Amino acid sequence: MGPKRGGEEIPPPNRRRNDLFVRAARREAVERVPVWYMRQAGRYDPLYHALKGERDLLTASRDVETAVRITLLPVDRLGVDAAILYADILTPIAGAGFDVRFIEGKGPVIDPPVRGDEDVARLRAFAPERVSFVGEILSALRDAPVPVIGFAGAPFTVASYLLEGGATREFRRTKAAYLSAPAFWHELLEALVDLTVDYLTYQARSGADVLMLFDSWVGALSPWDYEQYVLPYVRRLFQGLRRENPGHVLVYYPGVSSGELLPLLSDLSVDVLGVDWRVPLSEAAVRTRGRFVLQGNYDPSWLLAPENLLEAYAERVLEEGEQTPGHIFNVGHGLFPEVDLGKLKHLTDFVRTTSAARRRAQAKGGSP
Amino acid sequence: MGPKRGGEEIPPPNRRRNDLFVRAARREAVERVPVWYMRQAGRYDPLYHALKGERDLLTASRDVETAVRITLLPVDRLGVDAAILYADILTPIAGAGFDVRFIEGKGPVIDPPVRGDEDVARLRAFAPERVSFVGEILSALRDAPVPVIGFAGAPFTVASYLLEGGATREFRRTKAAYLSAPAFWHELLEALVDLTVDYLTYQARSGADVLMLFDSWVGALSPWDYEQYVLPYVRRLFQGLRRENPGHVLVYYPGVSSGELLPLLSDLSVDVLGVDWRVPLSEAAVRTRGRFVLQGNYDPSWLLAPENLLEAYAERVLEEGEQTPGHIFNVGHGLFPEVDLGKLKHLTDFVRTTSAARRRAQAKGGSP
Repeated sequence: MGPKRGGEEIPPPNRRRNDLFVRAARREAVERVPVWYMRQAGRYDPLYHALKGERDLLTASRDVETAVRITLLPVDRLGVDAAILYADILTPIAGAGFDVRFIEGKGPVIDPPVRGDEDVARLRAFAPERVSFVGEILSALRDAPVPVIGFAGAPFTVASYLLEGGATREFRRTKAAYLSAPAFWHELLEALVDLTVDYLTYQARSGADVLMLFDSWVGALSPWDYEQYVLPYVRRLFQGLRRENPGHVLVYYPGVSSGELLPLLSDLSVDVLGVDWRVPLSEAAVRTRGRFVLQGNYDPSWLLAPENLLEAYAERVLEEGEQTPGHIFNVGHGLFPEVDLGKLKHLTDFVRTTSAARRRAQAKGGSP
Repeated sequence: MGPKRGGEEIPPPNRRRNDLFVRAARREAVERVPVWYMRQAGRYDPLYHALKGERDLLTASRDVETAVRITLLPVDRLGVDAAILYADILTPIAGAGFDVRFIEGKGPVIDPPVRGDEDVARLRAFAPERVSFVGEILSALRDAPVPVIGFAGAPFTVASYLLEGGATREFRRTKAAYLSAPAFWHELLEALVDLTVDYLTYQARSGADVLMLFDSWVGALSPWDYEQYVLPYVRRLFQGLRRENPGHVLVYYPGVSSGELLPLLSDLSVDVLGVDWRVPLSEAAVRTRGRFVLQGNYDPSWLLAPENLLEAYAERVLEEGEQTPGHIFNVGHGLFPEVDLGKLKHLTDFVRTTSAARRRAQAKGGSP
C-alpha cells in the first residue's frame, strides 16, 4: 500500500527498464539523449491503421486493449525512450458532453461551439471518472518498459477549439473573446485549469510518469496578450499539478511559433519545456535563463530529406542541445502520414548512437 | 523627358502631396508616424465589394479603372499615408500562363501545380508586358496624393503556391523540394528572382514609389533552412532591384512567425523591414542591428477589441517603435472581412494624432 494524500491511495512509482527520459528531465546524468516523437503512435505506420481500423481517434482510444497496443507500438517499432497515452487533447471535452468529431482533412470539429456560461458549467461538471478508459489504459501500461507520458491540452488551445468550433489559422473568435469578453474568458479558462489539473492528476494516479501540457496554438499570440490572458492560467495549472503530483515530471509545450513567449516562461513550475524548429536550442536556453531541460527542435519535414541530410540536421540539433541544461530529442510538431517508417527508425538509431558517442567522447575530454 | 538607363526612358519621380511614408523610410525627419494597412483595399469595406462586384481579385484587377479606384479607396476612407497597387502576389504567375483561381474560403489554387523543368521555362518566358494592366494602373496613379506601393510575392512564398498548388499550413512539398531536389529548387528560385526583378522594375518605371516584397510564409522555416535555401535568392533579388531602381524605397516583409530569421537579414539591401505582432519592435531592432526602419507590429485581431483597448495597443506599438531607427505603423498580417470600418478609421486617426503629439512633446524635451 502506498502513501495517502487527500484520503486517496497513491500508487507507488513505476519501475521502468528504461528510465532515461525521467532522468534527463530531472537533470540527472544520462548516457545519451532520450528520444521520442510527437504523434509517434500515428498515421505513418501501417500497423497503427490496422489496429485503429475505421474508427476515429476518440472511438479507438475508448477501446482499452487497442489503445494500450497503439501506445506501445512506437516503442517496439522505433525504440523510442517514452510512450505517450493514446488519446486526444479533446478527450476530456468529449467526456464533458461536448459533441467532438474528427473529420478527415479538417481535424476536430466541436458542434455547437461554446458560446456562454452554460457551457462553462458543463466543463465544471466534468470528473475524470467520465473518461475512465484513460485510467484503464494507463493502469495497463504499468509494466511498460519506458516511461509513459500522460497529457492534456492547455487552456488556451482547448479554449480555441471550443470557441472556434474547430481548427483555425487566425483565432479571431478566441482573440475576440479575451479582448471583448474578458469576464467570460476568465470563467472559461478557470474552468479549464481546474478540469485539467483534475484530469492530469487522475492520469498520474493511474500510472503516468510524466504530465505534459500541449499549448499547440498559443504561438499565434503576441507576448503582451500571452502574458495577460494566458500565462496566469498556465502558471496556476502547473502550481496545482506540482502540489498534487510532487514526484512527477511536468512538461509544457507552447507549440509552434512560440519563441517570442519563452522569456515569459522562465518562472513556470515545470521541468521540461518544448521548443519548435524555429528557435535554436541555445537561444531558447538563453531566453529561459537555463531553467529548463528542453525538448524538441527537429522539423518533422526534415524526415523528407535523404538520409545523409536528415542525419546532418539531427547532429546540429544535438550540438545545440549540448548548450542547454538538458535535451530530449523530439520533433517540433506532430509526425505526419507521409513520414517513412524506415527513415524514422534510421533517425532514431542515429540519435541514439550519435548522442551516446558524443557523451562518451566528452566524458574523455576529447571532441566527439 | 527624364534620364535614360539601359536605353529606356525613366519617368521623373512622382511628387506626392503627402510623402510622409517615403521620408520615414529614408529616415528623414517626420512629424508623425506614417500609417497604412496590409489589405487595406479589401473585404471589410462595402464600397470595395461594390467596385469589385462578383469578379475574383485577378479579374477585377485587370479592369484598370476599377483597380485604380480600389487602390485609392482607403486613402479617401481612412486617410492612410500610402496606397498599394490592387493586384495579387500571383498576378505575374497567372501572367506566365499558370491557371490561378481564387476559391472562396480556400484562397488561390494553382492547378496543375509546378512539377518540373518545363514549368520553370514558362516562368523564364514571362515578360512584364504580359500584365500590362499593372503598368496602366500605376501610370494612372501618378497623380495620387500619397506614395504608391508596388509589390510582388517573394520567391519562397510564390514557389510554395506553385509547388503545393495552393495554401498550406505545413509546406511539405515545398520543403521536400529544397531538401530532396535542390538543383530543381535552385532553377525554380533563380527563375522567380529574375522574373520578380523585372516585374518590380516594370512597376517602378510605371510609377510605383515603393517596391515591396511579401514573403508571407517563410516564417515556417528554421533559420538553418532559410539561410541555405531562401536567403541567397532574397539577397540577389534586392541587389538587382537596387541596381535597377536606385532611387526607390525597398521593403521586405518576411511575414508571420519570422522573428527568428531577423538576425540573418541585417545585411539585406532594403530600407524597411516588416515585423509581425509576435516580436516587440525594440527586440526586432536589436536583432537587425538597427539597420532598418521597421513596419508593422499591430495584430489585426486587436481591431476586434473595444476602442479604448485598441488604442492602448496602438500606444504600446508606437512606444516600441520609438526605440527603433524608424517606424511605419501597419498590421502584421492582412485586414480581414470582419474588421469594422469605423474602428479602423478610429485607429488610423488615433495613430495620426497620438504619434504627432508624442513627436511634438519629444521635440520640446517633455514626456509625451
